[in-house]
Amino acid sequence: MRIVVLAGGIGGARFLRGLKRAVPDADITVIGNTGDDIHLFGLKVCPDLDTVMYTLGGGIDEEQGWGRSDETFHLKEELAAYGVGPDWFGLGDRDFATHIVRTQMLGAGFPLSAVTEALCDRWQPGVRLIPMTDDRVETHVAVELDGERKAVHFQEYWVRLRASVPAEAVVPVGAEQAKPAPGVLEAIGEADVILFPPSNPVVSVGTILAVPGIREAIADAGVPVVGLSPIVGDAPVRGMADKVLAAVGVESTAAAVAEHYGSGLLDGWLVDTVDAASVERVEAAGIRCRAVPLMMTDVDAAARMAGEALALAEEVRTA
Amino acid sequence: MRIVVLAGGIGGARFLRGLKRAVPDADITVIGNTGDDIHLFGLKVCPDLDTVMYTLGGGIDEEQGWGRSDETFHLKEELAAYGVGPDWFGLGDRDFATHIVRTQMLGAGFPLSAVTEALCDRWQPGVRLIPMTDDRVETHVAVELDGERKAVHFQEYWVRLRASVPAEAVVPVGAEQAKPAPGVLEAIGEADVILFPPSNPVVSVGTILAVPGIREAIADAGVPVVGLSPIVGDAPVRGMADKVLAAVGVESTAAAVAEHYGSGLLDGWLVDTVDAASVERVEAAGIRCRAVPLMMTDVDAAARMAGEALALAEEVRTA
Repeated sequence: MRIVVLAGGIGGARFLRGLKRAVPDADITVIGNTGDDIHLFGLKVCPDLDTVMYTLGGGIDEEQGWGRSDETFHLKEELAAYGVGPDWFGLGDRDFATHIVRTQMLGAGFPLSAVTEALCDRWQPGVRLIPMTDDRVETHVAVELDGERKAVHFQEYWVRLRASVPAEAVVPVGAEQAKPAPGVLEAIGEADVILFPPSNPVVSVGTILAVPGIREAIADAGVPVVGLSPIVGDAPVRGMADKVLAAVGVESTAAAVAEHYGSGLLDGWLVDTVDAASVERVEAAGIRCRAVPLMMTDVDAAARMAGEALALAEEVRTA
Repeated sequence: MRIVVLAGGIGGARFLRGLKRAVPDADITVIGNTGDDIHLFGLKVCPDLDTVMYTLGGGIDEEQGWGRSDETFHLKEELAAYGVGPDWFGLGDRDFATHIVRTQMLGAGFPLSAVTEALCDRWQPGVRLIPMTDDRVETHVAVELDGERKAVHFQEYWVRLRASVPAEAVVPVGAEQAKPAPGVLEAIGEADVILFPPSNPVVSVGTILAVPGIREAIADAGVPVVGLSPIVGDAPVRGMADKVLAAVGVESTAAAVAEHYGSGLLDGWLVDTVDAASVERVEAAGIRCRAVPLMMTDVDAAARMAGEALALAEEVRTA
């Protein structure tokens, strides 16, 4: 079975770990979000790609869900001692190595997709991880700060400001000119199932869909497309998805997110059991919907969710 | 008193610490060797400048004499896990920060001298540290390896090969086209005394003297120029200076090094008490010479050596 998954960071990575356990023999291609990539200290940092790679490769800090296990932060301490910022982004000593290798390879002319493949040679994530694009796309968030309207990098909004001010708009700068990375459209075209994990529908899955060609390829693939709600009981399971949903005029409910994707894209949608009442509304929008437990408390729970998503895909296929 | 010191790495740095203790009120300008600079992992590394800066700024690893105290090597471990080399150069997590800040500033267009000044803003070494040049100079060593004659970077010769093969030639590549960094010639012109610490006469002090204008400025300064022998009892006090002395046809003795600098440059020379017999030979070469203890066992010993060098300079001046 060939599965394509559109993944953001922590939610996507944990779902993928469950998916691998649920169907160990599946051929999984992950299209990773790069809209939250950022240049820090002259280095190219790809937080979502790295979270997927570290999580599936056994190098993740389990507690926080991002960054490396057994991590130290001496380099960052020293940068702060030099007065060189930003100091709000958590780069550990081990993690820095990934960014240094990536930056060197990019500098030598390799595209990000080739660099990601090379990094995965070490981590052996057990999936094929492809960035959504080799081109530069940077998600910016329009906010009002100190009485002034301005656009900040997504990481600044998310990590530094902790989404404490309303997002007035979310713009994946550069997406319109971006091309899907080599292998992205091919993987979608050859997929048996396409899954949207419980990742942020705006700044993770939404950014991937903003790369011209990807949304269309998924809609035209002719295979079941099934998503899992990142909203449980009207609140994001983790992160602050509600803040950026508001920016695109979508209410923070499981049903509204399904409608936001729309039946032109989505065939099936899983909501949590606490949101069982919204099944009817989702189905009325032309999307097959089931209510199942959606809390990824551990790998087994994630595996059960993945199993439910694949079961719903099968239901769609045979309907 | 205005003192100019030409410094390499460990020997120069430890001597400078002694000099500061001997004459706390002196105005000291250090002209640092950059011939052993190297680009590693896309970063500009200046081992000698950093050793001076860390040693005088209280951040040095006292035991090994280079690198940072309280250091960890997690980033380096990870680079090795990625299979990205070289693995023979000891870059610690804290040390990396210096190279990242330097590389960013150079990338932003600042010359190395300005970058060094900015780094010293943090370390407050208590001296003015100027790289010999803002231009790229790289010391290469001609060796025979695996039956083939080739040139390797000085650090590869020194650190990876540990000077285990004979150096057939030592070439400061780029030196001929290099210009002294801003402030270098001015400091020499205004100095009351110029000192050569017990640094390597070929790859440290010799490289600095190879930048056109510096040797001439020192010779023409009209102030006492006093050096301290890095060779004690026919062997280098530390490092492998004998290996590179052979490459320039100089025997590994305190007297031969003095003659190598020559009376056109050097007015006074300190040899260790074990080399007292060579005083006569050095003086015959027109260089005033004294035999005093030259082992920098601690800061006090280094301070006494600095005091002896200044006393000899005074002797030269009033002679």
